Amino acid sequence: MAGGSVLLAAVSLLSAFQQLHFAWLVGNSRRKHKVMPPAVTGAPEFDRTFRAQQNCVEFYPVFLTLLWTAGWFCNQEVASLLGVLYVFTRYKYFHGYVQSVSGRVTAFYLNLIILVCLLTLGVAGLVNSFLHEYLDVSLGKKLHKLI
Amino acid sequence: MAGGSVLLAAVSLLSAFQQLHFAWLVGNSRRKHKVMPPAVTGAPEFDRTFRAQQNCVEFYPVFLTLLWTAGWFCNQEVASLLGVLYVFTRYKYFHGYVQSVSGRVTAFYLNLIILVCLLTLGVAGLVNSFLHEYLDVSLGKKLHKLI
Amino acid sequence: MAGGSVLLAAVSLLSAFQQLHFAWLVGNSRRKHKVMPPAVTGAPEFDRTFRAQQNCVEFYPVFLTLLWTAGWFCNQEVASLLGVLYVFTRYKYFHGYVQSVSGRVTAFYLNLIILVCLLTLGVAGLVNSFLHEYLDVSLGKKLHKLI
Repeated sequence: MAGGSVLLAAVSLLSAFQQLHFAWLVGNSRRKHKVMPPAVTGAPEFDRTFRAQQNCVEFYPVFLTLLWTAGWFCNQEVASLLGVLYVFTRYKYFHGYVQSVSGRVTAFYLNLIILVCLLTLGVAGLVNSFLHEYLDVSLGKKLHKLI
Repeated sequence: MAGGSVLLAAVSLLSAFQQLHFAWLVGNSRRKHKVMPPAVTGAPEFDRTFRAQQNCVEFYPVFLTLLWTAGWFCNQEVASLLGVLYVFTRYKYFHGYVQSVSGRVTAFYLNLIILVCLLTLGVAGLVNSFLHEYLDVSLGKKLHKLI
Repeated sequence: MAGGSVLLAAVSLLSAFQQLHFAWLVGNSRRKHKVMPPAVTGAPEFDRTFRAQQNCVEFYPVFLTLLWTAGWFCNQEVASLLGVLYVFTRYKYFHGYVQSVSGRVTAFYLNLIILVCLLTLGVAGLVNSFLHEYLDVSLGKKLHKLI
């Protein structure tokens, strides 16, 4: 099962580690600002830290779905590179948001652009696979012949 | 890795796109009702929109897990069809909830029924695979002989 | 696609069922304490129940990623056993948190330890796969020769 997915799995592990790290930082912020569970509001810095992590949590399954679909059906190397960029821009997003509400904006739009790129790769790969599997047409070969 | 999963991947991409769309609608509702991050409460319509999206986020990894297990171990076509129905009922749920609290109920129960169907398919497929792999018994063939 | 993943899929189905069960218990707590949607705060017991479920939701995609990476790239049986332990400690965490805020602590740390074990297995498996696929070195065989 593992052949041809090493890079995708490596990026997935990296992003999972990042999620654990963000949860850890929320815990630190709880102690720093004395916001005891189950409360999720308190000092403004804690509120921003908590929302930053929640936003990362919300997008995480979407990211994984797009990463693996793009990687399996289109190109593993390109998808993994976009995945590493996503992890990096999520890092910028989180720390930017902790600093100030406006500090999250640029990184958030970069995140969205990366997700749209992964979605596009995934759709392109799926259309090709679909034509190949159900209509026996290979776009890859046709493009190759043209060039 | 991609053979025999084209439909499952297509449904996954569709549902990931839907999640991005819901997040986008929450952003629109933030601007409409002037609820600035990191706040997550404000006008009643915004509160409903936000909770609708949060509920979709909560169930999304569960949906993906059940979709792929049912598709890989039981039947890709049936699982994908149920997946498309899930995306449709999530659409009804979200927009129903934005309208009114009671507007979410019917679609929510339909969502649950679809998840239970996927779970049942997944369990059936796994029991068959388990018997086949560990006990060398094939229920599929036995059923085929009986008919 | 299904060969060699039966145990991982079984643990995934079990954990997905647990997530549905937790969501169900939050619904029950809503009715018991009369906390009507879209509100997410009310009686202290409801607040703890809701936060317990939210924490399980946050960690769920991370758990699935680590489970499958450890299982595919290192050892399915060990990863599945850790997965079952994770589901069990999540059960203890949830019900401990519903009882009292301090009741969640032990199970939460056990959860984290299990995730770190899965992460370690995944990294070890990936390093081995990477050496094998890109550098044509098999650590497994070398270890075998040494013994």
